Amino acid sequence: MEMITDAEVKAASLPQLNEICERLRREIFDTVSVCGGHLSSNLGTVELTVALHRAFDFPRDKIVFDVGHQCYTHKLLSDRAARFHTLRQEGGISGFPKRQESEYDCYDTGHAGTAISAALGIAKARDLKGEAFQVIALIGDGSFNNGLVFEALNSLHILNTRVLIVVNDNGMSISPTVGGTHDILGEMKAGMKPENIALFEQYGLSYMGVYNGNDLSELLPALDEAKKRLETSCVLLHVVTQKGHGYPFCENEPEATHGVSPDPRPHSEYSAALGEELCALAEKDSRIVAVTAAMTDSLGLREFFRRFPERAFDVGICEEHASVLCAAMATQGMRPYYAIYSTFLQRAFDEIVHDICGQNLPVTFCIDRAGITGADGETHQGVFDLSYLSFIPNLAIAIPKDVGEFRAMLRAGANWNSPLAIRYPRAGVEGRVLPVVIGKMEVLHSTMSDIIVLAAGERCIRIAEEVRKNAAARGQDFSIVNARFLKPLDEALLNGLTETHVITMEDNVRIGGLGDAIARFYRNTGKKVYSLGYDDAFIPHGKPVSLAQKHGLSREALENLIGELYARG
Amino acid sequence: MEMITDAEVKAASLPQLNEICERLRREIFDTVSVCGGHLSSNLGTVELTVALHRAFDFPRDKIVFDVGHQCYTHKLLSDRAARFHTLRQEGGISGFPKRQESEYDCYDTGHAGTAISAALGIAKARDLKGEAFQVIALIGDGSFNNGLVFEALNSLHILNTRVLIVVNDNGMSISPTVGGTHDILGEMKAGMKPENIALFEQYGLSYMGVYNGNDLSELLPALDEAKKRLETSCVLLHVVTQKGHGYPFCENEPEATHGVSPDPRPHSEYSAALGEELCALAEKDSRIVAVTAAMTDSLGLREFFRRFPERAFDVGICEEHASVLCAAMATQGMRPYYAIYSTFLQRAFDEIVHDICGQNLPVTFCIDRAGITGADGETHQGVFDLSYLSFIPNLAIAIPKDVGEFRAMLRAGANWNSPLAIRYPRAGVEGRVLPVVIGKMEVLHSTMSDIIVLAAGERCIRIAEEVRKNAAARGQDFSIVNARFLKPLDEALLNGLTETHVITMEDNVRIGGLGDAIARFYRNTGKKVYSLGYDDAFIPHGKPVSLAQKHGLSREALENLIGELYARG
Repeated sequence: MEMITDAEVKAASLPQLNEICERLRREIFDTVSVCGGHLSSNLGTVELTVALHRAFDFPRDKIVFDVGHQCYTHKLLSDRAARFHTLRQEGGISGFPKRQESEYDCYDTGHAGTAISAALGIAKARDLKGEAFQVIALIGDGSFNNGLVFEALNSLHILNTRVLIVVNDNGMSISPTVGGTHDILGEMKAGMKPENIALFEQYGLSYMGVYNGNDLSELLPALDEAKKRLETSCVLLHVVTQKGHGYPFCENEPEATHGVSPDPRPHSEYSAALGEELCALAEKDSRIVAVTAAMTDSLGLREFFRRFPERAFDVGICEEHASVLCAAMATQGMRPYYAIYSTFLQRAFDEIVHDICGQNLPVTFCIDRAGITGADGETHQGVFDLSYLSFIPNLAIAIPKDVGEFRAMLRAGANWNSPLAIRYPRAGVEGRVLPVVIGKMEVLHSTMSDIIVLAAGERCIRIAEEVRKNAAARGQDFSIVNARFLKPLDEALLNGLTETHVITMEDNVRIGGLGDAIARFYRNTGKKVYSLGYDDAFIPHGKPVSLAQKHGLSREALENLIGELYARG
Repeated sequence: MEMITDAEVKAASLPQLNEICERLRREIFDTVSVCGGHLSSNLGTVELTVALHRAFDFPRDKIVFDVGHQCYTHKLLSDRAARFHTLRQEGGISGFPKRQESEYDCYDTGHAGTAISAALGIAKARDLKGEAFQVIALIGDGSFNNGLVFEALNSLHILNTRVLIVVNDNGMSISPTVGGTHDILGEMKAGMKPENIALFEQYGLSYMGVYNGNDLSELLPALDEAKKRLETSCVLLHVVTQKGHGYPFCENEPEATHGVSPDPRPHSEYSAALGEELCALAEKDSRIVAVTAAMTDSLGLREFFRRFPERAFDVGICEEHASVLCAAMATQGMRPYYAIYSTFLQRAFDEIVHDICGQNLPVTFCIDRAGITGADGETHQGVFDLSYLSFIPNLAIAIPKDVGEFRAMLRAGANWNSPLAIRYPRAGVEGRVLPVVIGKMEVLHSTMSDIIVLAAGERCIRIAEEVRKNAAARGQDFSIVNARFLKPLDEALLNGLTETHVITMEDNVRIGGLGDAIARFYRNTGKKVYSLGYDDAFIPHGKPVSLAQKHGLSREALENLIGELYARG
């Protein structure tokens, strides 16, 4: 669409502004329908973002979007309007704020809870430099539960600067928002406990509420007032919006329309299997509990939560707390399964090391969305987990080749007396459920050639199998091993391999994962080790297959390597 | 000392209890004077711990100590009394709670903020198993600022279980406690704002205050009342204690006596240099700011905070928030130096990846206490940082060989336009300050032999130099390179090395650090790479040199390897 300038927004009458909002809302809906993206959260914040653009002067003033997936209106109102149809497409604009994309984006986000800290840092730098502009953090009520938020609030007096914190309260993270902090907000909008205001004032925040946050006639004067208060204090503006506003289907199904895909999206077979297996395990074994951080459906846990509510814990976007809960329950003999996305687990790194692995406790990490995920870009590509887990003592690391094997690994976890991490992608193929022994790899194709591929996970094994079919026809056969455990390494199998050339493949960066582990094992033995995986770089948004290819993991890469080894003889 | 049983504690009169406290306090003081350890925090909590042992039945009831360094009285009152003189000695009892040491310890700690989450997990497992015992979290006011605490409080309603949270408010973490949360506690004990109670009640906590927490006549009835309230609700018992209580020197110098050492402790040369260099840089460059998470003196920053208060930020035990603040300030052209201990930085892993390296921002991490640190044990051995940093794109990683080189690296950071991590141990030797180019290693000894040692950091280079002196005398000479940058790798230098045998040495686990990087670089070149570093295990407390030796990094290990290579010819 054509850009609506801030000058137009500032000059518009209220009816004209409402019309602008409708245009924006339609543009978002239509674009997301084609490109995929975060729908409901953006539909809900159109009026709020328009009101902010009317009240403030971007890019001189700065706005930090927490998580960042609610920035579409901001992109449409800044210099990305003409490119908005390229949303989340490879080479197109990102679905998240990106400093490299526009001077209107001042801070890159992707994970929850960083916005207030970031706004404070920007404001403090402004003060030190003697500059004068406003800084706004826009944060959802789901993110507001994250520990980082309270670390930031705790420091308001210390930092002694001024920012506007806008809490967009739509009652949802991906799942409905839970917890005491959200109850406090809820009681305030219900007018039940105005004394809750004390919570915010204690931290040095001046509280304001706009409880019809899709109504510009309430938003505009509130922002004028907030700007006045900002002259002397930090301000918390609590804005209640309706996720999916304006599209009844989205209003009624905010979780299902949080993120939408244009394609007939592949069913997430791994998460479906997780739900089924955990239910079956829990049925027989009262020690099984499931823990998650603000996601249930997208991890496949809806049925588990319905059937075993007393053993199902969604603690909100609190990845660290969820980890410690798991560790502590495990000390008492429970068997926690902690389901989480690959990159979100990064938040709990210290607790993985100390609480779970340091105490050698039987917690099973179900690490979903591992490997390249695609359209969400840098902050959501699960390409570091093998690296950040591989050096933690006591931890077993499993990488299923298909959904059947994933099921077997989940079952094995129930009787494994140490921590176990299982990492898997979103989509997969079924496959047989054969018992696995933790630490044992599997030979898939044994040949007389001098080349063997150790491939970890579905994407890599699929590539290896495909390449082998053609290569074998050309007389360039090779063996394939399903490297389904990165740790413990299958030393017996590895010691028995007779091939000279060992190629590793992993849906992870090449530093610190399978390639390094195999090379370490074979160091100074005379074997040649080659590793395929991703380059040492942040991988932007795009199509998974294309991104994988560009960054080092593809059929062509394996074909070329095989061809080269055969050519050398 | 002889164990004082809980039966004796329960049967004692108030004067007898006070006498018991005096005996315990003397034992702690005397033992720490010999063994080293955490002094002031333990002196302050003698009465509180005795009162808890009187009110509860351990080990049936469970207590989780946050951070854990205030557990000495608990150890003396449980089955560790007879071994208390071995405190923190290799093979002796740990200075932290350890499940493997005693059934009185139910959860291992070491870092801040985990206790409430852990207590909730234990309590929830208890409920699920239909058992009946009490669970207590004892947490200091410094830890109470950590984000994890609010994640735990946020989930009280969700988890629907009961725990007693005792906040030991002595006004200190290692440095004085800062921030809004602490102000709220402070106003309550001052009787200024009883309405602050709302903050806790909103989360479902029944608040009680004991504002003379070294007085058993106040503590005992309060704990009786807390036990009653626990029947229907979670309870927050706010106990004000005096850090260092009973020893005027400790009362007056709580920061200096937080941790004490029996030996004439080596001055921490690296932290002294950090303070001097940052002051000198800040003098000339207004972009320089220093950020820390509840530590100033121990990192060498006291003088910087005194001289540049407007550019010095101690945000409390909030490692994640500190990282985002740095990133955000850097987006505005500031040059943040973030000083922190190696293991504490683990808490900010996600923010290092996304906020700092994802945005490629010029933040310099000053990572103190890297490598084996000794007496604090598993949770404080800085042996994972090279591994958890090595695969993060955009990050340069520096390992100075001495304090002079550290100074040069700090100066280089001010003009490096990407993130830089400098990791260094506590104690060091000075050395010349010669300019360093980021990514350039240094040849220390070039010989005609076929063996070269790439050693990173002071401990490793010292070992290499010492071994070389004797070896050279035996005709077993080798070359030495100061591998001062793990990233970017000095490809020019590495490509030019003619030696066949390349030995790497790092004060880090062998997985994921320098050894793997060098082996990756030389993969399939014909060079042989051998790596010395720590085994894949958590390293308990002990003497650094002895621990290093036991776990894979020692003179002997290098000598043996060199001898073997010469023997093979």
